[in-house]
Amino acid sequence: MGLIVQKFGGSSVANTERIRKVAERIIEYKDAGHQVVTVVSAMGDSTDDLIELASQLNSKPSAREMDMLLSTGEQVSMSLLAMAIQAKGYQVISLTGHQAGIRTDSIHSKAKILDVKTDRLEQELGKGNIVIVAGFQGMSDENEITTLGRGGSDTTAVALAAALNADICEIYTDVDGVYTSDPRVVPNASKLASISYDEMLELASLGALVLQPRAVEFAKLSGVKLHVRSSFNHSEGTIVQEVESMEKAMVVSGVACDHNVTKIALFDVPDKPGIAYQLFDALAKENINVDMIIQSHEQENRNDISFTVTRDDKDTAVAIANKVADAIGARGVAYDDTVAKVSIVGAGMKTNPGVAAKMFEVLYRLNINIQMISTSEIKVSCVIDEQDGNRAVVALHEAFGLDKLEQ
Amino acid sequence: MGLIVQKFGGSSVANTERIRKVAERIIEYKDAGHQVVTVVSAMGDSTDDLIELASQLNSKPSAREMDMLLSTGEQVSMSLLAMAIQAKGYQVISLTGHQAGIRTDSIHSKAKILDVKTDRLEQELGKGNIVIVAGFQGMSDENEITTLGRGGSDTTAVALAAALNADICEIYTDVDGVYTSDPRVVPNASKLASISYDEMLELASLGALVLQPRAVEFAKLSGVKLHVRSSFNHSEGTIVQEVESMEKAMVVSGVACDHNVTKIALFDVPDKPGIAYQLFDALAKENINVDMIIQSHEQENRNDISFTVTRDDKDTAVAIANKVADAIGARGVAYDDTVAKVSIVGAGMKTNPGVAAKMFEVLYRLNINIQMISTSEIKVSCVIDEQDGNRAVVALHEAFGLDKLEQ
Repeated sequence: MGLIVQKFGGSSVANTERIRKVAERIIEYKDAGHQVVTVVSAMGDSTDDLIELASQLNSKPSAREMDMLLSTGEQVSMSLLAMAIQAKGYQVISLTGHQAGIRTDSIHSKAKILDVKTDRLEQELGKGNIVIVAGFQGMSDENEITTLGRGGSDTTAVALAAALNADICEIYTDVDGVYTSDPRVVPNASKLASISYDEMLELASLGALVLQPRAVEFAKLSGVKLHVRSSFNHSEGTIVQEVESMEKAMVVSGVACDHNVTKIALFDVPDKPGIAYQLFDALAKENINVDMIIQSHEQENRNDISFTVTRDDKDTAVAIANKVADAIGARGVAYDDTVAKVSIVGAGMKTNPGVAAKMFEVLYRLNINIQMISTSEIKVSCVIDEQDGNRAVVALHEAFGLDKLEQ
Repeated sequence: MGLIVQKFGGSSVANTERIRKVAERIIEYKDAGHQVVTVVSAMGDSTDDLIELASQLNSKPSAREMDMLLSTGEQVSMSLLAMAIQAKGYQVISLTGHQAGIRTDSIHSKAKILDVKTDRLEQELGKGNIVIVAGFQGMSDENEITTLGRGGSDTTAVALAAALNADICEIYTDVDGVYTSDPRVVPNASKLASISYDEMLELASLGALVLQPRAVEFAKLSGVKLHVRSSFNHSEGTIVQEVESMEKAMVVSGVACDHNVTKIALFDVPDKPGIAYQLFDALAKENINVDMIIQSHEQENRNDISFTVTRDDKDTAVAIANKVADAIGARGVAYDDTVAKVSIVGAGMKTNPGVAAKMFEVLYRLNINIQMISTSEIKVSCVIDEQDGNRAVVALHEAFGLDKLEQ
């Protein structure tokens, strides 16, 4: 018997049939004697439908009015879910972000949770109610409805779990856990029984989109144990928790490939102080997130600078790079969006030397040219030709023994 | 220059094209120097769509969760309308019932407005904002979202107009005012330039559904002047205000026919005290609204009692009547749902004797049998055969000179 916070995403409540299934799942926990707080996203595509309506009226609506509009999506799904639970004869109440005490800052469309006032939540749990909470939303001190941005429902669930000191925070998705690699690329990828916050963060930002990075960071900071699992079956998923509590950290726990990469290079950049600052400050001012940066010494007093951005930012980034290249007297700018970033992630990496070398060896044996390298304590990433991405992932997955994991 | 409260119903904001038209209309007032507060209903059929979703999950959802669900409809339309106004370069803000300070009691699905705290409204108007308010909803002292029931948006508009001491409350609908009769039945029905609250109340409850009776009552109590007009053209509609302020009250200002009538009769009821109480108390306990009641003295110590209810309530009412008839020893029960109620309404009636007699004469000359009669100070109603309804209305409309009104 304990207190469980759960989060069901949009695909889990996409229609009334699925909402009924979620209701049944919640009731199983209630019947087992647990207290349950369930966070829901908006139904299926309903958020996109609202965005489409807005775009017909205004190409740049204010973030404040968009929050007004989009926050209705979760209010619809939470009340329908509550009705489905009522229909089974159980006590339940749905709460908006505001009613659930979720206080945010005033940055509309990407608000941050400041704290959770748990009075109402505790009162409803005390009455024996199952509590359904609208994900993705809160209220500012100015009495304004705010939203947390895409994926904010994960963050809502983690924040509630932290504030209520829940035993676990279950994140229900359409996959049944975190895998050692993308099963569409590596058919014998294994589900991980557990993974550390840091590993999950690296995998999340590498495109394994089962969990929002923000929610993982929040969980790490507040020590909330996460359980990522499928809403379509009852199998155990993946536990995300502090590595200290795990019996043994795996050297490499996952191999990922990110295809949303463009490499941009400035050639023959004069070797003077302040050049890198000029370039990356200009990019930052346009809100362009730069991932990897390599500066190579080509010839006397001339360098090449290469960096990567997502493909959405390619056009703006190339334009800025050209402008800066002119200003500083670089020879030219080139870009390549036929590259991919292959990464290995593992919390045990920092105590096991030679992991990076093994990765390079695997790529060498496949005759794959490494264009850029970046490393962190628990990750090694290489930019390679996009067409080599999948075979690199398969070979790395095998080389690090991830296809022989015992679950 | 003044303060105008407007209300646009669901058909006026049924799609983005219509929302854009409403935005243009609001802007005309703003450009003319007025302060504008606009109340909106949910888009077109969206409330019915939400009710349908709920019914798939629960045949009897709690009123509290239904309010959660349905209150999203107005939140969608108000934010879209605000975006349409922003797109034209005007300052605007949308407010939920809660944010607009609409405080209600806690009776979910048919909450009553207790008061309106105008601080936020006045603050936004003071900033030069056009203010859009969600109709139909408010918040209780328990921090719960409530709805005012169908047609509640009219009431919201009147309450805001009263609280803000607005110069006028404009009710935009899909007809261009209040008519002397239903134009589908009486092709030469005239639009009334003005009408008293009491007349409007009688006509509203007689099925001229341009205005909710509750909103008219509220307007009468608080002295809010209403202007009922079309959202599809700019012609002047009908002013609803105190009769004292009108130059001359019309003897008869409207003729209505209500087809939603069932007549139920108990025969040979013993003439004892308490019989009527027994019958109508039983009906009231089932929330059945009884309209007309006639008790006729048929023979010594035996009466007939007839009454009318709406056709939705027929089955329940007949069952109750049978039960009571058994208990009190009446001879039997009959019902007839092929009847209609024809009414003439006019504030000048009370100072003009002979109006009822003239109505009966018109029906007599048409050879129409009158089955029941009821009167108030400003209304005479007769129950007749339903098939005679339309020709009765046409003849009465002509007899009282309503087809020759000068506008």
